[in-house]
Amino acid sequence: MIDCGRYPAKRTVGDELTVGADIFRDGHDVLRAVSRYRPPDSRTWREVEMRRVDAHLDGDRWEGTFAVDRTGRWSWTIEAWTDAFATWRGELERKIEAGQSDLSGELSEGIVLLEAAAQRAKKGARHRLIVAAARTLADPKKRDEVKREAALDTRLLEAVEHDPDRSDATALEQPLVVDVDRERARFGSWYELFPRSWGGLNGVAREIPELAELGFDVLYLPPVHPIGHTNRKGANNTLVAAKNDPGSPWAIGDETGGHTALHPQLGSMEDFDALVALANEHGVEIALDFAIQCSADHPWLTEHPEWFNRRPDGTLKYAENPPKKYQDIYNVNFDSEDWRALWDALLEVVLYWASHGVTIFRVDNPHTKPLPFWEWLIAEVNKQYPDVLFLAEAFTRAAMMRQLAKVGFNQSYTYFTWKSSKYELTEYVTELATSGMQDYYRPNFFVNTPDILTEELQHGGPPKFASRLVLGATLSPTYGIYSGFENFERVPVRAGSEEYVDSEKYEIKLRALDGPLLALVSRMNAIRRDNPALQHLDNIRFLETENDALIAYAKRHGDNTILSVVTLDPVNAQEGIVIVPFELGLPPVFEVSDLLSGETFDWRMGRNYVRLDPYRVAHLLRVTTT
Amino acid sequence: MIDCGRYPAKRTVGDELTVGADIFRDGHDVLRAVSRYRPPDSRTWREVEMRRVDAHLDGDRWEGTFAVDRTGRWSWTIEAWTDAFATWRGELERKIEAGQSDLSGELSEGIVLLEAAAQRAKKGARHRLIVAAARTLADPKKRDEVKREAALDTRLLEAVEHDPDRSDATALEQPLVVDVDRERARFGSWYELFPRSWGGLNGVAREIPELAELGFDVLYLPPVHPIGHTNRKGANNTLVAAKNDPGSPWAIGDETGGHTALHPQLGSMEDFDALVALANEHGVEIALDFAIQCSADHPWLTEHPEWFNRRPDGTLKYAENPPKKYQDIYNVNFDSEDWRALWDALLEVVLYWASHGVTIFRVDNPHTKPLPFWEWLIAEVNKQYPDVLFLAEAFTRAAMMRQLAKVGFNQSYTYFTWKSSKYELTEYVTELATSGMQDYYRPNFFVNTPDILTEELQHGGPPKFASRLVLGATLSPTYGIYSGFENFERVPVRAGSEEYVDSEKYEIKLRALDGPLLALVSRMNAIRRDNPALQHLDNIRFLETENDALIAYAKRHGDNTILSVVTLDPVNAQEGIVIVPFELGLPPVFEVSDLLSGETFDWRMGRNYVRLDPYRVAHLLRVTTT
Repeated sequence: MIDCGRYPAKRTVGDELTVGADIFRDGHDVLRAVSRYRPPDSRTWREVEMRRVDAHLDGDRWEGTFAVDRTGRWSWTIEAWTDAFATWRGELERKIEAGQSDLSGELSEGIVLLEAAAQRAKKGARHRLIVAAARTLADPKKRDEVKREAALDTRLLEAVEHDPDRSDATALEQPLVVDVDRERARFGSWYELFPRSWGGLNGVAREIPELAELGFDVLYLPPVHPIGHTNRKGANNTLVAAKNDPGSPWAIGDETGGHTALHPQLGSMEDFDALVALANEHGVEIALDFAIQCSADHPWLTEHPEWFNRRPDGTLKYAENPPKKYQDIYNVNFDSEDWRALWDALLEVVLYWASHGVTIFRVDNPHTKPLPFWEWLIAEVNKQYPDVLFLAEAFTRAAMMRQLAKVGFNQSYTYFTWKSSKYELTEYVTELATSGMQDYYRPNFFVNTPDILTEELQHGGPPKFASRLVLGATLSPTYGIYSGFENFERVPVRAGSEEYVDSEKYEIKLRALDGPLLALVSRMNAIRRDNPALQHLDNIRFLETENDALIAYAKRHGDNTILSVVTLDPVNAQEGIVIVPFELGLPPVFEVSDLLSGETFDWRMGRNYVRLDPYRVAHLLRVTTT
Repeated sequence: MIDCGRYPAKRTVGDELTVGADIFRDGHDVLRAVSRYRPPDSRTWREVEMRRVDAHLDGDRWEGTFAVDRTGRWSWTIEAWTDAFATWRGELERKIEAGQSDLSGELSEGIVLLEAAAQRAKKGARHRLIVAAARTLADPKKRDEVKREAALDTRLLEAVEHDPDRSDATALEQPLVVDVDRERARFGSWYELFPRSWGGLNGVAREIPELAELGFDVLYLPPVHPIGHTNRKGANNTLVAAKNDPGSPWAIGDETGGHTALHPQLGSMEDFDALVALANEHGVEIALDFAIQCSADHPWLTEHPEWFNRRPDGTLKYAENPPKKYQDIYNVNFDSEDWRALWDALLEVVLYWASHGVTIFRVDNPHTKPLPFWEWLIAEVNKQYPDVLFLAEAFTRAAMMRQLAKVGFNQSYTYFTWKSSKYELTEYVTELATSGMQDYYRPNFFVNTPDILTEELQHGGPPKFASRLVLGATLSPTYGIYSGFENFERVPVRAGSEEYVDSEKYEIKLRALDGPLLALVSRMNAIRRDNPALQHLDNIRFLETENDALIAYAKRHGDNTILSVVTLDPVNAQEGIVIVPFELGLPPVFEVSDLLSGETFDWRMGRNYVRLDPYRVAHLLRVTTT
């Protein structure tokens, strides 16, 4: 239940959903309960039996599990009732055990219950069994037999309970809902590139086979629209652009078009459609940036001046977060009196690109736009394109990041880039995986972005890049890298900044898929595809290593168990002990295969020696003992 | 928020209520928020400013605190809005700091904001200040001055924010409620006795001055009604009563009357009224048992046969929980078609005794009656007698015990009697005090009851009685003892049973207030009254002792701090170290006065040596350094 049911929980196709409740009533009667659930667009409720799962702890927690096997909004509720026959039978059993001799009153109750059960069963074998039992109970000569056998017959119990009396059933006041997305919402490997550095859309198309071969599922493109020339940013974010400076792709729109236009140097819409088609053939999806701001030259500024913030003195306000200034872009004004037309226009933008095969939108800075707008937009888009996913690029305080996920974003950027120590990583991933967030917030662990070159990467060199790659790819089911990571690009624009020097945001680079880290990237993507354990988040369990420079965690899904051990030290070799706890359910001694090196080792419950160094930053151990 | 607001939270008069919420919006604007609250029977909402309490943790948690100074149902909500002027002023400040020279656009915005503020202020000093500031901003010659001074004037900020623009304010969807009870709901010392063992109501009245002197606040009487003779239980719960056996007071009713009658041997209603009046004069309240079951001879069985369970063969069902049998009582049937009349009759019983001055009802086995009945009954009684309190005598699984508190019971029996080890006590009290239960579940720590003579007491002898008394009286703001405890009565009816031998439930005893433990009881009650810290539960903090036989905990309220150290070992002396943590906020070295022995000691933050033995089972240390 997310915020008392105000927001849907999230699952992906093929998941099982376990729902639970404290179920109890006054007195000592036997209870029964079912989870009732309804698939999307279905009128029929199905149900599955619930069980009391903490009877050993003297608790009243009941749970039921069902599979959600298609996308859309599922409803569920819980129904519980008193099982009068099981109550009667249980009391009778205890009385017989306690040696009570006169059971005539009890048997008279049993007859009434059996007669009602016979009526419910109508006819058939169960009906005959119940009628016979009722007659036996009514026959004074057979009562001794009844006491020992008939009334306590398990077949009879099953026959009666097959069609129980649910006349006192009670249910949740309102059904709750779960949004079930396709698998890519949970699991996927992302690559981000600026098309202008790869020869435009056709150049990107030429890389598609190789990106697919490397194991990427999603190719994410920053905005592909015309770029404004007023106040265009120059190289390294300078305020005055040189003549050939291309400007930031996020300064969207010029006289030739806005959010539904393509930058002419990238190619035509035919090229775009061809890129999408080719990518899909290779199993790669295209994710497009959705950034709402406009350059000063965007057609909307003249067509809809009322959509933009103006000062009382008539000047237009460019985007800013003082002392930061974004002189090349203007934010739309969601407080505009014409907000409804603005919302519709933004919806049209998303629908336009969805109609051209874009299946994922990476939304720029959603936290600076109203939450009700996102809740509406995502729902509207999904009415026409139920498989379209939205990724929230919000790096802000936790409450807003969580709220964006609650209102509908299928995935979210995270603080992963800034979690470097073992303590920070363990605490953060544990929060994502176990605090309740796992039911609505799906992380996308980008290891870098065009805006984020962390200090760790700047100073850690290639071993740190490898370590962060393995961490991102194994901690989170979805991770991504921004082009250049595989080349160990790590020079900041200045000391203390997380911006790249000569950032691709303001310049055209010549890029190629030739980075030395691609071998490990490819290996990681293949391992992730082969091992379902790595495709989930809430199955993680951190393991003690007795060394703060070594982090270890286990993930298990079905019979697939992966033990990951990663060094956080890019300079020195580190030794430690990985403690495999009883709770993982592994045999006392088991064999593991290192999916990175191909070696096999004998591991055991308890303490296992490990050693990692800058040339070997991780063990990814698959348990091969069955 | 208890169960998404379905049930009220609880407080007592004089408490402060702190309410909180995550408050945030899109973008970077400055927010303000208030807690709005409405006392019982008031139409006016008051409000108190909320503050962001976890800014240092980069959080969005806001809290506001207000005092609840009278009993009844309070409502509260939260209202938050965007502070446009503070946002403008903050941005201006950052721009000036960053050296931005052209601020004309910004100043034009400020003028509009100030003009609106001036209109809200209407007239007076604040109005004049705002108007002057607006003029300064509008005067091109004074703009340099503005940049440095006027616009950032703190008095101006205060003047504008005194009457803020709350036009975009948002509030909780529904106000939430808090039931505020009188102090006795939280804090009190109880004594339980069977009037028939004290010479009836007049005999009990003779003990009132002494009970008051001992420091008891509540005198709890088991049922005082006529007792059935059909299937009357004999001494030690035997099935056949001897001629003079008085029967169990819980087998309520005979031909002379039922729940609104007095047992003739106890006295008359005039005696009852006199007892209540005398007790009240001495500051003692009378708590009466409310047990719904009836003996076979209760008038209701003939007047309302439809209120009782009958088997299909016509036999009446006595109360049972197989293999346990209660042959002398019959439960009413809440599933009766005439349930509405039954509910009304039960309400009349409670109202009858409330009209005779009973201010607390100790409800027998509420967990075997429907929860909606209790929710209704308690609300109905409180409409006429808002100060009447209800104590739930439910010893069942946790979910039901919590639910009874949620539906309205002001106090609840607990598992305290069976929590004997340091681990168990710490875990249990921590749950009661910090898991959220503290907002609706108020424990009453009886150290024994007529049904519960724990194994610990049976075997521990007088030191164990003393230790349990100190634990009950210091861990919980409300505690109680059942007559005989002060005499160290500890012989069970048989080995392995928690029933007393020759239990007062089935026999008349000759009782007097002469037990050797009364000196300590009296001392404890006095200490509890003198020390506000012991009158609360959620202020507890357990302390490390480095010895599992010694339990220590601190409670602080205002400037009253009590450190309790209690031995759990009734046989051997125990030594340990009480570690006083930094978080208690005590000086590095401080003086404590032992409220039991009168000694003073120098204690310190960190490690303090303690030694307790069977002759000195506890330190109750009041910090006297100011």
